[in-house]
Amino acid sequence: MNDSNTPRKKTIGALLFPEFELLDIFGPLEMFGVLGDDFEIVTIAETTEPVASAQGPRSVIDRCFDDATEVDVLLVPGGRGTRVEVENPQLLDYLRTLYPRLDYLASICTGSGLLAAAGLLDGRSATSNKRSFAWARNCSDQVTWIAQARWVEDGNIFTAGGVAAGIDMALALIGKILDVETATAVAEGTEYEWHRDAGWDPFAAKAGLV
Amino acid sequence: MNDSNTPRKKTIGALLFPEFELLDIFGPLEMFGVLGDDFEIVTIAETTEPVASAQGPRSVIDRCFDDATEVDVLLVPGGRGTRVEVENPQLLDYLRTLYPRLDYLASICTGSGLLAAAGLLDGRSATSNKRSFAWARNCSDQVTWIAQARWVEDGNIFTAGGVAAGIDMALALIGKILDVETATAVAEGTEYEWHRDAGWDPFAAKAGLV
Repeated sequence: MNDSNTPRKKTIGALLFPEFELLDIFGPLEMFGVLGDDFEIVTIAETTEPVASAQGPRSVIDRCFDDATEVDVLLVPGGRGTRVEVENPQLLDYLRTLYPRLDYLASICTGSGLLAAAGLLDGRSATSNKRSFAWARNCSDQVTWIAQARWVEDGNIFTAGGVAAGIDMALALIGKILDVETATAVAEGTEYEWHRDAGWDPFAAKAGLV
Repeated sequence: MNDSNTPRKKTIGALLFPEFELLDIFGPLEMFGVLGDDFEIVTIAETTEPVASAQGPRSVIDRCFDDATEVDVLLVPGGRGTRVEVENPQLLDYLRTLYPRLDYLASICTGSGLLAAAGLLDGRSATSNKRSFAWARNCSDQVTWIAQARWVEDGNIFTAGGVAAGIDMALALIGKILDVETATAVAEGTEYEWHRDAGWDPFAAKAGLV
């Protein structure tokens, strides 16, 4: 398996910060993680201290911002911690520094507010959590904010709607990086009903956005 | 908020072991965890060392088996680690000792195999991951194994199908412990399309079980 002809695994970086939303990150990580021959997961935070989620459970951190080891896909969750991190220059600088080296950058929920605050969504379309949409909008007026979308793909940046929407986006990303048959097999193996249509979004209306 | 008239929060215990399945546990924990006024989450394992999931990410442990502090609802995930834990007397004893003090015991995916091996499903109906159904069945012949079910409720024991099925089961449990309106609000707030029908299960047929 260490044959030089074997393509190396893609590294999926999970950016964590205090009070991140649990399912925002662990939904997508499940989908990538079951494909252990193709992807390996690393958790990344400002320091290597364990990080507590908004719901309580704490995660061990593999790498801090100073570690320049390659990442192929960076996942940025939301959660109420984004209200603090949006003013954290270390985190925004990390996003700006890492982005040019990534294959894909993807956010879930209010994580898109962090990408917007870092300037990475300037001139692009993006979505966010539907109940916190006004907050995301306030992070940048240089973004075309799309209210009704399960996820939005613009170039190599994917942004998902709230929490569970990240799972659908992750499957779409797997379809892009590998192939749709593999993404379908992951959804079936995890008994997840994949919403394949990026425009499927009953939650925008429930939040009064459309 | 510490007024003696305020009901205490219910404690949701998340039982972790090496190579547990990430989404099995973090899907349900998201649903309980967003109701921070009603529930608090503790991670529990054999020792207090961090525990690595089957997908890689490691979790910090709050309590070990020796800590007899009360738990109201215990969640038991699946994942390939169940193949080892099903022969771990410490874990099976912990389940047997804790069960009589719980309001509810709930498993996700192959976690039902652990409940079955502990004898806690004797004479009851239960379900499990659809692709690993034969393994669960082999854990006990004293159980009525239901192949086509998103989750099965029998007395105060809930068993869910594979991985994502745990989210639907958790919402049903929240509906039971609190009320259905609250569970509906949690699903909408997390932009999750809740399958409210415990009999909804397209995955049993895909796995050739029906």
